[in-house]
Amino acid sequence: MIKPLGDRVLVEASAKEEKTASGIVLPDTAKEKPQEGTIVAVGSGSLNKDGARVALEVKVGDRVLFSKYAGTEIKYEGKEYLIMKESDIHAIVG
Amino acid sequence: MIKPLGDRVLVEASAKEEKTASGIVLPDTAKEKPQEGTIVAVGSGSLNKDGARVALEVKVGDRVLFSKYAGTEIKYEGKEYLIMKESDIHAIVG
Amino acid sequence: MIKPLGDRVLVEASAKEEKTASGIVLPDTAKEKPQEGTIVAVGSGSLNKDGARVALEVKVGDRVLFSKYAGTEIKYEGKEYLIMKESDIHAIVG
Amino acid sequence: MIKPLGDRVLVEASAKEEKTASGIVLPDTAKEKPQEGTIVAVGSGSLNKDGARVALEVKVGDRVLFSKYAGTEIKYEGKEYLIMKESDIHAIVG
Amino acid sequence: MIKPLGDRVLVEASAKEEKTASGIVLPDTAKEKPQEGTIVAVGSGSLNKDGARVALEVKVGDRVLFSKYAGTEIKYEGKEYLIMKESDIHAIVG
Amino acid sequence: MIKPLGDRVLVEASAKEEKTASGIVLPDTAKEKPQEGTIVAVGSGSLNKDGARVALEVKVGDRVLFSKYAGTEIKYEGKEYLIMKESDIHAIVG
Amino acid sequence: MIKPLGDRVLVEASAKEEKTASGIVLPDTAKEKPQEGTIVAVGSGSLNKDGARVALEVKVGDRVLFSKYAGTEIKYEGKEYLIMKESDIHAIVG
Repeated sequence: MIKPLGDRVLVEASAKEEKTASGIVLPDTAKEKPQEGTIVAVGSGSLNKDGARVALEVKVGDRVLFSKYAGTEIKYEGKEYLIMKESDIHAIVG
Repeated sequence: MIKPLGDRVLVEASAKEEKTASGIVLPDTAKEKPQEGTIVAVGSGSLNKDGARVALEVKVGDRVLFSKYAGTEIKYEGKEYLIMKESDIHAIVG
Repeated sequence: MIKPLGDRVLVEASAKEEKTASGIVLPDTAKEKPQEGTIVAVGSGSLNKDGARVALEVKVGDRVLFSKYAGTEIKYEGKEYLIMKESDIHAIVG
Repeated sequence: MIKPLGDRVLVEASAKEEKTASGIVLPDTAKEKPQEGTIVAVGSGSLNKDGARVALEVKVGDRVLFSKYAGTEIKYEGKEYLIMKESDIHAIVG
Repeated sequence: MIKPLGDRVLVEASAKEEKTASGIVLPDTAKEKPQEGTIVAVGSGSLNKDGARVALEVKVGDRVLFSKYAGTEIKYEGKEYLIMKESDIHAIVG
Repeated sequence: MIKPLGDRVLVEASAKEEKTASGIVLPDTAKEKPQEGTIVAVGSGSLNKDGARVALEVKVGDRVLFSKYAGTEIKYEGKEYLIMKESDIHAIVG
Repeated sequence: MIKPLGDRVLVEASAKEEKTASGIVLPDTAKEKPQEGTIVAVGSGSLNKDGARVALEVKVGDRVLFSKYAGTEIKYEGKEYLIMKESDIHAIVG
């Protein structure tokens, strides 16, 4: 088990096919292109001004688009994951 | 379906004609020129100091002007979109 | 109609004569010189800490001085405008 | 009339004599030297966290010392002024 | 005894084997790779806006992943430790 | 009279002898060395989040140590002073 | 007497032996190594959002580890001290 801290999430990145699982084709331009993946674990949220936790917007199982330069790679029980901040995630797709 | 996170919005950019749909002609000067588009989906808003969501000012269907360098490009079911923060949007036109 | 978002305003810049409409002559020195214009539309204000809107200080019709490098240019129904943040405006004149 | 916005003030700078009106002689060293002037108009103050205005500390008529690189120059009805933020003012003298 | 201050923690880093104790194999890529370790002591937490302490999310005994460039090294009674901020810790594993 | 604004203070720097008035000898090393002086006037304090003034910690007559690069020099009625922010002062001595 | 201001503390650094007083041997690596010392005086604390003082976590007599580049050196009655911010202190040891 991997439990991300704070406003971090654990993401399993999709294989980088030209046409991804949810039907989003990433265009070939100069702008940064997001990558697709699935949320595997979520942190307990960031702190608000009173020191209470604010739940994240994404939940386990969500398919998400995120900055392709986001996160830290780890390998756990044979699978590769990314740990990133929720703010690196652009949108939920599906 | 693409659901932007937080204070992000999904925009379908207008074709870059010299005279755009709403009648705004973008002048040819040294200053940055905004681009026009239509809001296709909106996030649930940014967090205020108590951790509550503050609804965005734009809504689905609004025609907007935004920084031409703003956002991340994605293609979904054959159409190109931009995901950007609401703060990258200058104004609603129409 | 162009509705600026948040703390943005729409300004119609005055023609850059040596002596402007309100009688302010911009001196010729090394310091940045402000430009004069008229407020054409105002946003609904910035968010305070509770997520409520704080009304802008300027209103439609005000003649203002603003940083000459401020804002984004647009052309709408034949006229040129600038969209800028209220914080780019130095003073109301008249 | 020129009404500065927010926490800005309008200052009429004193002539840069070696000995200024209030008897302050600016020494000749490597450190930045302040300039003297008189407050001609004041803004309605900066916003506190609730969106209310906090009155400025200086008032019209105060003789002040300010950073010599501070502010934006304007000329109005034949006189030169500086528009600057109150935070650019070091002290009231007299 | 070493008592970290504020939001700092004391970590005993795991030996850098290819396959670490919890079964996480760190992949060989261009992205930054986290390091594994065990929390040995925790600070009393960061201050919230009222000046009260907010307890840390990690506790003594937790196995954690942290940025490999994080922290300050110390040696105490023959063992090496790292003192780092909790924000340098990505996740709890186990 | 010179009245510093906000969280500023007016300091009369001590003559830079090797052994200063309060018996502090400034060592000769690579680190920045503080300078000694006496508080001559204090501002009304910085603003807290509600827009109220928070009184300064130093008072007129305090002998203080401050960063030797801190402040702005002025000369008033034949004496040299420094105007600086209270945060540039390290300690009260005596 | 030296009274540090705000969130500053006065520290008497330990002699830099290979094995320090509390038994911490500083390892010889590329990472920054902390230095050991004893708290001699503490400030009245930083301001919280209401302008009240929040007491420091360290107290006089605490043995502490701090960044070796932290602080400002002074000599007082024949002894050398460092004035630094509490945030430069990593941990209390002993």
